[in-house]
Amino acid sequence: MGDIRLIEVKEEIFSDNIKLAAEVRERLRKTKTMLLNLMSSPGSGKTSLILRTVEGLKGSLRLGVIEADIDSTVDAEKVAARGIPAIQLRTGGFCHLDATMVTQGIDAMAVNELDLVIIENVGNLVCPAEFDTGAHKNVMILSVPEGDDKPLKYPLMFSICDLLLVNKIDYLSLSDFDMAALRKRVLALNPRITILEASCKTGAGIEGWIDWLKGEVAAFKGLE
Amino acid sequence: MGDIRLIEVKEEIFSDNIKLAAEVRERLRKTKTMLLNLMSSPGSGKTSLILRTVEGLKGSLRLGVIEADIDSTVDAEKVAARGIPAIQLRTGGFCHLDATMVTQGIDAMAVNELDLVIIENVGNLVCPAEFDTGAHKNVMILSVPEGDDKPLKYPLMFSICDLLLVNKIDYLSLSDFDMAALRKRVLALNPRITILEASCKTGAGIEGWIDWLKGEVAAFKGLE
Repeated sequence: MGDIRLIEVKEEIFSDNIKLAAEVRERLRKTKTMLLNLMSSPGSGKTSLILRTVEGLKGSLRLGVIEADIDSTVDAEKVAARGIPAIQLRTGGFCHLDATMVTQGIDAMAVNELDLVIIENVGNLVCPAEFDTGAHKNVMILSVPEGDDKPLKYPLMFSICDLLLVNKIDYLSLSDFDMAALRKRVLALNPRITILEASCKTGAGIEGWIDWLKGEVAAFKGLE
Repeated sequence: MGDIRLIEVKEEIFSDNIKLAAEVRERLRKTKTMLLNLMSSPGSGKTSLILRTVEGLKGSLRLGVIEADIDSTVDAEKVAARGIPAIQLRTGGFCHLDATMVTQGIDAMAVNELDLVIIENVGNLVCPAEFDTGAHKNVMILSVPEGDDKPLKYPLMFSICDLLLVNKIDYLSLSDFDMAALRKRVLALNPRITILEASCKTGAGIEGWIDWLKGEVAAFKGLE
């Protein structure tokens, strides 16, 4: 297998995807629906953060969720059980979501009735960073047990995100995680990123996340 | 972008890779060098386990390490600092290792002088499971903070491994991780898998891992 052949294929896929992602963004701008792409490693807390967000936005913003899962529906079931419109995309072995899959998701939702749609991407710090989903905002979670060296190893993901939420800060007491070193590494890659610290388990820091979300949606809708 | 086109490309890449992986396996069988492919999510403890393994095998088996990293050399430096032959493959954005990249790695090592080569794959539970590296054994780490539901979400990875090492058991006291539920889910996917529990931080359970490794290498070499 030649590297060059594979790279050509990737470029063709990328250019088709970039066009479609721009269409998704424009379509949702018209309905004033902000699309947010949530990414992380497996088990960092994407679903837990979405469940906290459902709770935190209750009565203020109308939320929908698109769940990507390779083979199961466990996450969509948890969200739907809270009365939130949830679409499950089975990626069938794909390691990321692209704009085609997201289009299928929003086609299946009444997006004009929603203020915010959160996409839970496949748990993976590599491939999702390469594929524009059409989201207006990219958010990633890094959990404390993963370690403070991850920006050195997965730099693209940290570079393309608007916000990094450092989750599982309740594990800090058992860990040698160096928050100052992490911040320095992340900001070296992406000086404009917002960094928040939280624990989806205890609820610490979740208010800051909800405030950020409300501010971003308001700005997106042009209300402020 | 049509799904069908992408799948055709993937199949062509897969069939080339399968042939080359078989060649890698055969080549290392001749030099009696066991090749082990170590996979996990980012931050589950692949490098920490390799450092524990360097320590545990000292004086008994001759070990080499192939490190995959998208963009950095931090892991290979840690291994080389212990006097172990270490090759760093920069995957340049690739989300997995394939047999071509592994061939480049073993071409650069004196494999005939080694009993065991461990490949540290890219931190990712999806793509590495799809690409045969040519390894004789596949091993994965799942760390306690990632959660006991991961077999439901990344089933292929659990299906192709010979051994699962559940790492960071020192976090169990802070976690609602259900080890019995995990074991049941993993064994439903892969009844022949060996499951070990360990903490690379405290050293608990590492002896069992070293014993398993020594047993597998001895069997591979036909000494028992």
